[in-house]
Amino acid sequence: MIITLKKNADEKQLDILLAWLNGFGVTLETETHGDRLVIAVLGDVSRVDEELLSDMEIVESVTRVSEKYKLTNRKLHAEDTIVDVGGRKFGGKNYAFIAGPCSVESEKQIIEIAKAVKSAGAAALRGGAFKPRTSPYDFQGLKSEGVKLLKKAKAETGLPIVTEITSVKSVDDFEGVDLIQIGARNMQNFELLKEVGKLGAPVLLKRGLVNTVDELLLSAEYIMSEGNKNVILCERGIRTFETLTRNTLDLGVILLLKERTHLPVIVDPSHASGLRRLVEPLSLAAAAVGADGVMIEVHNDPVHALCDGAQSVVPEEFKRIVEKTEAVLAACGDKRIEK
Amino acid sequence: MIITLKKNADEKQLDILLAWLNGFGVTLETETHGDRLVIAVLGDVSRVDEELLSDMEIVESVTRVSEKYKLTNRKLHAEDTIVDVGGRKFGGKNYAFIAGPCSVESEKQIIEIAKAVKSAGAAALRGGAFKPRTSPYDFQGLKSEGVKLLKKAKAETGLPIVTEITSVKSVDDFEGVDLIQIGARNMQNFELLKEVGKLGAPVLLKRGLVNTVDELLLSAEYIMSEGNKNVILCERGIRTFETLTRNTLDLGVILLLKERTHLPVIVDPSHASGLRRLVEPLSLAAAAVGADGVMIEVHNDPVHALCDGAQSVVPEEFKRIVEKTEAVLAACGDKRIEK
Amino acid sequence: MIITLKKNADEKQLDILLAWLNGFGVTLETETHGDRLVIAVLGDVSRVDEELLSDMEIVESVTRVSEKYKLTNRKLHAEDTIVDVGGRKFGGKNYAFIAGPCSVESEKQIIEIAKAVKSAGAAALRGGAFKPRTSPYDFQGLKSEGVKLLKKAKAETGLPIVTEITSVKSVDDFEGVDLIQIGARNMQNFELLKEVGKLGAPVLLKRGLVNTVDELLLSAEYIMSEGNKNVILCERGIRTFETLTRNTLDLGVILLLKERTHLPVIVDPSHASGLRRLVEPLSLAAAAVGADGVMIEVHNDPVHALCDGAQSVVPEEFKRIVEKTEAVLAACGDKRIEK
Amino acid sequence: MIITLKKNADEKQLDILLAWLNGFGVTLETETHGDRLVIAVLGDVSRVDEELLSDMEIVESVTRVSEKYKLTNRKLHAEDTIVDVGGRKFGGKNYAFIAGPCSVESEKQIIEIAKAVKSAGAAALRGGAFKPRTSPYDFQGLKSEGVKLLKKAKAETGLPIVTEITSVKSVDDFEGVDLIQIGARNMQNFELLKEVGKLGAPVLLKRGLVNTVDELLLSAEYIMSEGNKNVILCERGIRTFETLTRNTLDLGVILLLKERTHLPVIVDPSHASGLRRLVEPLSLAAAAVGADGVMIEVHNDPVHALCDGAQSVVPEEFKRIVEKTEAVLAACGDKRIEK
Repeated sequence: MIITLKKNADEKQLDILLAWLNGFGVTLETETHGDRLVIAVLGDVSRVDEELLSDMEIVESVTRVSEKYKLTNRKLHAEDTIVDVGGRKFGGKNYAFIAGPCSVESEKQIIEIAKAVKSAGAAALRGGAFKPRTSPYDFQGLKSEGVKLLKKAKAETGLPIVTEITSVKSVDDFEGVDLIQIGARNMQNFELLKEVGKLGAPVLLKRGLVNTVDELLLSAEYIMSEGNKNVILCERGIRTFETLTRNTLDLGVILLLKERTHLPVIVDPSHASGLRRLVEPLSLAAAAVGADGVMIEVHNDPVHALCDGAQSVVPEEFKRIVEKTEAVLAACGDKRIEK
Repeated sequence: MIITLKKNADEKQLDILLAWLNGFGVTLETETHGDRLVIAVLGDVSRVDEELLSDMEIVESVTRVSEKYKLTNRKLHAEDTIVDVGGRKFGGKNYAFIAGPCSVESEKQIIEIAKAVKSAGAAALRGGAFKPRTSPYDFQGLKSEGVKLLKKAKAETGLPIVTEITSVKSVDDFEGVDLIQIGARNMQNFELLKEVGKLGAPVLLKRGLVNTVDELLLSAEYIMSEGNKNVILCERGIRTFETLTRNTLDLGVILLLKERTHLPVIVDPSHASGLRRLVEPLSLAAAAVGADGVMIEVHNDPVHALCDGAQSVVPEEFKRIVEKTEAVLAACGDKRIEK
Repeated sequence: MIITLKKNADEKQLDILLAWLNGFGVTLETETHGDRLVIAVLGDVSRVDEELLSDMEIVESVTRVSEKYKLTNRKLHAEDTIVDVGGRKFGGKNYAFIAGPCSVESEKQIIEIAKAVKSAGAAALRGGAFKPRTSPYDFQGLKSEGVKLLKKAKAETGLPIVTEITSVKSVDDFEGVDLIQIGARNMQNFELLKEVGKLGAPVLLKRGLVNTVDELLLSAEYIMSEGNKNVILCERGIRTFETLTRNTLDLGVILLLKERTHLPVIVDPSHASGLRRLVEPLSLAAAAVGADGVMIEVHNDPVHALCDGAQSVVPEEFKRIVEKTEAVLAACGDKRIEK
Repeated sequence: MIITLKKNADEKQLDILLAWLNGFGVTLETETHGDRLVIAVLGDVSRVDEELLSDMEIVESVTRVSEKYKLTNRKLHAEDTIVDVGGRKFGGKNYAFIAGPCSVESEKQIIEIAKAVKSAGAAALRGGAFKPRTSPYDFQGLKSEGVKLLKKAKAETGLPIVTEITSVKSVDDFEGVDLIQIGARNMQNFELLKEVGKLGAPVLLKRGLVNTVDELLLSAEYIMSEGNKNVILCERGIRTFETLTRNTLDLGVILLLKERTHLPVIVDPSHASGLRRLVEPLSLAAAAVGADGVMIEVHNDPVHALCDGAQSVVPEEFKRIVEKTEAVLAACGDKRIEK
């Protein structure tokens, strides 16, 4: 860390600053550049508050020598990371579909959908078991029972499975899950991030409704700094003043994310829009804009078929989306669908 | 207008309400439905404040018989409107590119770019003459001189021209402009909307940075209610908490806009992102999501070529965008590029 | 739950709906009103998805008989809840100050500040021990050691203590804490909410940066539905496009919150603004607008005194804020400061 | 303007840059500092695009010698500007109330309200004559007739009058208006800003729903750079994701605005909240936070009295607000109400 002081910095203030820095057990080297003093802070500076430093009256600027992002940073890892999810590749030249129901409801349901989405071209099966719900009175999912049903569907079809974790307490239930999802509401649940960072399974990290790209990358950094290098990022819409769609899908950041990080970046058009008829156009846009895949809600039951405005598509629509996406990918670049 | 009162509405309050309504010169017919009174308000109800009515203690609900949107409404005009811009078609099965520099700078500049974008596949030439700038000290454009240079470029190349109007006072300068643009900052400059509504030329109405789809349609309604039926809408990004891109391009509303209105809807990826390298991916996404075209900033000068982060692309990039768009359109549906 | 169907609802769709509802083990009573069918759903309807129902083609409307908010709802609990925090009263006619440093750093520091804020009029001492930080490389707090130091400060001064919990795993460390804080980032960490709901200590629940008032109340409902009735809400700024202040303090919702719920509502001007010189005016505004107290960052060390833009005030400033607040409260209503 | 180039800047790129700069008719002085070239650009640099320059590959930084804000800037004008509005003082130690109906409806109405608000302590009478409405089918105000009625109310009561202008075409109608309002939707209607800048009357400039403090100051700069130094700024709420209140009143920026500019800053709690019962608490908060006054909607008619949720208060409520504000001002500082 390099601290440049202002010209003619007050001596007394300088003494306080140096005493404070010494308190962290770091080594200080001061040097004069022209009429300014520059302090190099060596050693473990993780406890030194950069923001506080920057605000001090005598401080001109503070520079961390090391990048704020380390493990996620493309500057330090130029080539695309390819994450292996139960044998399917995410990232690089691969374009992957994750598909499945909002919630796992029954063995019959999840196996039927698994078969349908597999034959249509999905690389993995999603399904909610532990459901984070805004109200405590809403259905919270089948929980560990739901995870078991997903595993049955995997045994039946061979499709890797993806499901969301909501608490550090349920880690054991996720043994055997191929891709563990951190939902938008938990993107800054740092304790949960650290915990999944200790697991072996790849992690799907969704962007929070109000979180910047920088914050998303720092949350990925939490996971990676615990040793888990297999992280996939997911843009799923941000909260804005426009309420016509449930959230505003932010496709403009996909390329910027991919410039900053080597990790795969996918898009969730179902949750972003909350509307079934927007899933196809937004899926195609995600492919056109350079994402590494999409996660789509697919249902197969007649009840949902009664719904005009639900956010899930039926298997036939999903199949059509995969086919059109193939053509869009061919039009835009050299990615191919990983099935 | 139908006003349904609450059960057992206070008589004195009812008298006040009826006297107030009578003051507008409308005809009132009251009828009892079960234990509620219903008032039908006939005649010119344009001055009756619906919001005020809805808030009254004795009022259960207020229903306008006529739709809030009339002329823009697809319910009342099912087929796509095709706007003719100097011989090029916008809307329906047509996909159109508007391209050109941020500002008109010189005859040489605008004619060179006009030739380049025409040969690459543009349907119209854009160029700023009257520039709305956040600071009074910034360059405000060549004004009427800039419009004249655009007309020269049109004479030279045959390309229809598009440029922005910023004041009711400069209407005369826009004689001969094929598509008059209302910028995002003026989307709710209602006096300007009415004025361009009286002109014969088609109007390109950009969505304001903070405006909802409803407000955009009502602004189009201002133009159309003055007699001008040729309006093209343009999504150009909204202001959100994310500052990585200049604005957040809201591609999720394109389909919803097209469901609500029969007017053509195009996208401006240059202003939305503010970054040259995002123009291609966002243009392809706009085609994938079902827009009717895009408006792209194209420059041809070496100064801009020195810029890393400018928002304009060079003619060769524009050409590649047109070619890739052609393939994306073929992958997604049955639109064709109008050149 | 009451489901009203549309006129002439399709019989086949009705059969599917009834079969689906029966699957939840509820009792159904159907009745005809005019030309519509109405279905009363009795029993445990918590698993029935209201949104899904509302979207069905044959459904006109869905009404939950019970309120969405139960335990937090002022309609069902008219009088103000007064939360006892280690002997100090929050809510009702009481106005309370929580004050203390951002982070607990040492025994000397926390005891000195505790004494200073107590003598100035604070009702409780705050201090961060477990710190949720955006980056894994930033200082994460003294953790359980920090909580112990807070308890020492309490033993020394008698001030109740307030500190933030970040994980269900550290519940044991919070034994003896008088008011357990759930930070903004964890407002929708539902597993954590449930866990603190099982504890005896009162909970301070901060509004998330992007969360609506409705979502805040539902998160409080999570805590209360586990048996803990002592919840204090805290507005601390929302994320908007304006970046001049760190967040935008939303004082307009204070009164609306207090209309909806009987729980005390306080304001955090330090985190909302991120600027020391805004703490006083926003604190006074909070008192003027009808809040039940404020939480203010106070530091006493010379390093922070070097900072121009830090968000903490020094003890003398805190003392002046308490004094001015007393006068503002007298001017606006009948609240008195709880010391 | 000072342009610092990067180390070892490419010579060819430098030539292009210099040629481009010369094209503006400015004088260039280049100098070498260490291993960098620094270019001083002298003369009229208003047409030189700073953003474009900053983006160039060879450019390290661009500094304008002059401040971006000139006439609005407190750095160049330390003391508070006091704006005289028909004999009442706005700014400095004065706190002023502007009050009156949303729309001018009749002579009787406006004179009655004028008398009521004057006796309660208002410094000026507001009333909408030209109404900017989102829909073309909504009541657009009495227009010039409305302004005439305001003048009658002024003749009757001596209260200065405030009303909104919406078009450069209606400037003549505003002869005799004491304070001309630019509404939020027109904050960046730069042609209108320039036009009112040429008039003699003071201008009340409202912040746009989505505009930053910087943009507000630059819009004030437009007015002042035309010669009109009498500008009052008004915070009236910004558009955010929270829809419980119509807009989110941003009280945190009041102090920051007053640090940046010497102009008076008032607050509009009526439009910000859209709810009558929030007008009092938000008015008191505005006084507590350091504003120079408030603008409040006041009505006197029985129809509005039927409304539960309207945004206007009745004269008695307004009187109580003035009285409580007096006490809040005494508690917080040394401002006094200007009547």
